[in-house]
Amino acid sequence: MKKFAVVLSGNGVFDGSEIHEATMTLLAITQHGSIYDIFAPDVEQYHVINHITGEEMPETRNVLVESARIARGNIRPLSEFNAAGFDALIFPGGFGAAKNLSTFAFDGPDCTVNEEVRKAVLDMREASKPIGALCISPVVIAKILGDVQVTIGQDPGTAEAIEKMGGTHKTTNHGEVTVDEANMVFTTPCYMLDANILQIYNGAYNVVGEMMKYL
Amino acid sequence: MKKFAVVLSGNGVFDGSEIHEATMTLLAITQHGSIYDIFAPDVEQYHVINHITGEEMPETRNVLVESARIARGNIRPLSEFNAAGFDALIFPGGFGAAKNLSTFAFDGPDCTVNEEVRKAVLDMREASKPIGALCISPVVIAKILGDVQVTIGQDPGTAEAIEKMGGTHKTTNHGEVTVDEANMVFTTPCYMLDANILQIYNGAYNVVGEMMKYL
Repeated sequence: MKKFAVVLSGNGVFDGSEIHEATMTLLAITQHGSIYDIFAPDVEQYHVINHITGEEMPETRNVLVESARIARGNIRPLSEFNAAGFDALIFPGGFGAAKNLSTFAFDGPDCTVNEEVRKAVLDMREASKPIGALCISPVVIAKILGDVQVTIGQDPGTAEAIEKMGGTHKTTNHGEVTVDEANMVFTTPCYMLDANILQIYNGAYNVVGEMMKYL
Repeated sequence: MKKFAVVLSGNGVFDGSEIHEATMTLLAITQHGSIYDIFAPDVEQYHVINHITGEEMPETRNVLVESARIARGNIRPLSEFNAAGFDALIFPGGFGAAKNLSTFAFDGPDCTVNEEVRKAVLDMREASKPIGALCISPVVIAKILGDVQVTIGQDPGTAEAIEKMGGTHKTTNHGEVTVDEANMVFTTPCYMLDANILQIYNGAYNVVGEMMKYL
């Protein structure tokens, strides 16, 4: 039985992990006969967004503690991640990837990446183990690995940022997966396109399915 | 195309909606070719639980605002629910049903139910439209309707409370649905059993599927 590490970035599309993508990733791993552990960095969220108004709320929340809501409490700090213990690594999307795991939402191609996220990706890359990323998360992979082919769907600005970081962007539609065999990187657009929840289900199922072919 | 109203109770199993059940309910509705609007009461959560430690956090959160995270912002206050505009009503589970939609977690069979929740259920019942409930949510339906057959799986204490409220409890296993045709009430245990996420997917799919037979 293969074991995935799933990295969350909070709990809610506008300031954390996109909830449907995170849930569908866990489901897809289970449907493909594999198991998972869930991780998140133990850091403060960049900010807290009221998901009705879109406005910032005057409070602080912790990425690990909020991610634990999606994980039903079964979560560990990303500092405890050890590549040797896992067959694959995967990042659901949501603005948390661009605000908490990296500063991409603010700094674009000049962003910085959380050091634990960087180490996790580099360790898996070194071991030639599959790395998956949904939605906006591929920008984090591109920032870390540089010369890698990924997809974030069809957004020209984000695609351009990926190219500036040294990556190659492939335009895709709902549920399609871009596979970079040389880097063992697997990406799918999900809510970077105007998608419904069934299309997210398909995207998560497909990206995990592609990763499974190499396990 | 049939339209469901989905009622959330926050965002996180221990103080709100169970996230996997809520997400799988939205997915199931879409997979069955129907559409949904999402609602939640605009009230403070009973409390806020740290989902890692299980301890209460010294803050307040609003049920509607937190539920909006699962809904990606597309949510309305439950006060705006109108039974005439929907073909079916469904409640995912999570402690939010027993803490925010009702006081069942504290008062058992003597609990009170949020008035907007009560009105929504009674209006749908009056119109003989299907009402679905997952996990612990069937206790809310039993409290409102009294003489109704539901399942919450196999927990003897909760089953006894349902009987005390005038209901009948049917023991079920993963993914099974209890149908009370006379009341148009459809229930399934989900995480009231020791379940994995694939079993939640199956439960949500099956309960929505049973409801669809009457639409």
